[in-house]
Amino acid sequence: MDYPKRKLIMLPGPTNVPDRVMDAMIRPMISHRGETFTSLLKSVTEKSRHLFQTTLDPVVLTASGTGGVEAAVWNLVRPGDKVVVPVFGEFSTRLAETVELAGGEAIRVTSEFGTVPSREAVEDAVNKAGNLKAVFIVHNETSTGCAVPYIEQLAGTVREKGAFYVVDAISSLGGYAIPVDKWGVDVCITGSQKCLAAPPGLSLLSMSKRTEEYVRKNPPKVRYFDLARQLDFLAHGETPFTPAIPLYWALDEALTMLVEEGLENRVERHAKHAKTFYSILEAMGLKGFADPKVRSNTVISGLYPEGIDEKQFRKRMNEEYDIILGAGFGALKARMFRIGNMGEVSTAHVHRTTAAMALTFKKFGYAVDLGRVSAVLEQAA
Amino acid sequence: MDYPKRKLIMLPGPTNVPDRVMDAMIRPMISHRGETFTSLLKSVTEKSRHLFQTTLDPVVLTASGTGGVEAAVWNLVRPGDKVVVPVFGEFSTRLAETVELAGGEAIRVTSEFGTVPSREAVEDAVNKAGNLKAVFIVHNETSTGCAVPYIEQLAGTVREKGAFYVVDAISSLGGYAIPVDKWGVDVCITGSQKCLAAPPGLSLLSMSKRTEEYVRKNPPKVRYFDLARQLDFLAHGETPFTPAIPLYWALDEALTMLVEEGLENRVERHAKHAKTFYSILEAMGLKGFADPKVRSNTVISGLYPEGIDEKQFRKRMNEEYDIILGAGFGALKARMFRIGNMGEVSTAHVHRTTAAMALTFKKFGYAVDLGRVSAVLEQAA
Repeated sequence: MDYPKRKLIMLPGPTNVPDRVMDAMIRPMISHRGETFTSLLKSVTEKSRHLFQTTLDPVVLTASGTGGVEAAVWNLVRPGDKVVVPVFGEFSTRLAETVELAGGEAIRVTSEFGTVPSREAVEDAVNKAGNLKAVFIVHNETSTGCAVPYIEQLAGTVREKGAFYVVDAISSLGGYAIPVDKWGVDVCITGSQKCLAAPPGLSLLSMSKRTEEYVRKNPPKVRYFDLARQLDFLAHGETPFTPAIPLYWALDEALTMLVEEGLENRVERHAKHAKTFYSILEAMGLKGFADPKVRSNTVISGLYPEGIDEKQFRKRMNEEYDIILGAGFGALKARMFRIGNMGEVSTAHVHRTTAAMALTFKKFGYAVDLGRVSAVLEQAA
Repeated sequence: MDYPKRKLIMLPGPTNVPDRVMDAMIRPMISHRGETFTSLLKSVTEKSRHLFQTTLDPVVLTASGTGGVEAAVWNLVRPGDKVVVPVFGEFSTRLAETVELAGGEAIRVTSEFGTVPSREAVEDAVNKAGNLKAVFIVHNETSTGCAVPYIEQLAGTVREKGAFYVVDAISSLGGYAIPVDKWGVDVCITGSQKCLAAPPGLSLLSMSKRTEEYVRKNPPKVRYFDLARQLDFLAHGETPFTPAIPLYWALDEALTMLVEEGLENRVERHAKHAKTFYSILEAMGLKGFADPKVRSNTVISGLYPEGIDEKQFRKRMNEEYDIILGAGFGALKARMFRIGNMGEVSTAHVHRTTAAMALTFKKFGYAVDLGRVSAVLEQAA
């Protein structure tokens, strides 16, 4: 294999990974049943508490985010269980399907892709369902660039029904704050390769006290994702199965950077650059894909002007400017772009990406008012 | 976290990882939906064919070996299915339990730990079972150091019953050859961190044509481990979920080293060093744990002399000689050791490990005849 050229990865995951995080992976190999790994796991666990804002111990699974979400489903959903799932994009669609694969009855609350179901519609479904087991909600739809604005508000309604409240925050946690203890989120899941800017391959999952109790009493059918087993091993500083050790080193370094920056500052940084991205796209005359009221700070989605082929556009951005943009999803795939505004994202990333986009648009015959773009950049500075 | 000291990892996984394999992980991050990853996956797939000796495409999962084995179970076993599982250690015990978690009826053929069930006993169970769905067999019991010597021979009996033949070769493939096409193995599973000497976090899984057909027609309930989905994505050079990209780079480099050495040479090298290990342990007056007729070339198990605490012994080996030995398993845990003879293992590894063991035995008051040990080393040279 040829050594790959370094590109600016503006994907909604994986993201650019800081050198110090990459370098952490090549530490000498260690035993996963020895003191060094126990210290490493302890360090990861403590810093993960900062990320989730919890006093309990989050677990880390050797699996991508989808595996983490599947773990949540298999540990909580039993055949016949009723589960409300707002569906408004590819990943929430998959979530509802996963609930059904585990034997649950998924009560979908749908909205058009590019929007999120209203809080009222979701609360209505929650209130109407007899014997509701859980609400599984995607916070940030990576496929559409929409973020649910009522994660905190919904918690009370779910709690009143005695149901579990599970939040898929794969592409948002770290770019957004979800204080799980304060808000009463029973399970929150995120991935290593999104706002944490670590390499892909690990998922992180927080559990409330009552979730811990439930999973200990009700072991799931899928052993690899058995959360009670994870907790038991974590209690003595180990994982049940051989962990992806280099990825744990990287995650630890990435979490150290999070703690150094502070979660609040990181969230602000994501919000600031998202605002600039959206303003520039608007100055370029482009239409956003997501409803502006719910557009995401971590996944910026938009539509190319009529006549521009998204594949060709991404190809030129890659070949001529070494920038990797995200493709579209769904019915408007051929006209849609997604920009990952995640992890390391900085003013430099915004400048480089938008300058290259503007110039590429010109090459495709779409005139961009560079003066307006510059004005936005100046204002954001 | 402090930077860890480099140790000689003589564990039955993870193993020592060559520098060129570790270094492959820190290549610049890439998109998992782009051409570079497609080339990487193609390269991994082609070299994996050499490992499994198959013309079909093995799949690689972002999960440890346990996840790979669980994938095989969930893709083939349906509620009520009869499955013969030889049980002779920790990992084969888990395998039978996993079959039951998936709803299957595990027909256990047991033998004392330190032995393997006889071929006759297993064939008898296979022949007696009406409507047999599959035989799941652990080739090499990592917990006891026993390798089943009749993997090839059993295939015919299983095939005659029309059942699937699944071989867990997590801790053996590469140190042993299992030519899956020639022998008629329907599914064979291994891990990245054993005889391939790559970091942990990936499992590799081969499938026969009829397995491919079965999984395509019968999707499993666990989406993360859906093998048909893996095959569909592999066909266009992708994985269904975000893969642990740095681990794929490392695996590719480790497989390149396998191809450079040649599978046959690697198997011979493992056999040669295993022989020396066993001879030296005998010269030290130690008892093996495994029945000599089925002792493994990749996991060397033995018993400490009476009165030596295994924890204390491992501690001194680690602190005084920077060597990590494996602990025991099961009833004889307190007196048992396991040495991983896997991956990079070389004459230098054998010398360093056995010299340190001999000197540590002396410190514990157990006299070792160093003359006899030297004679073995000389003979092996």
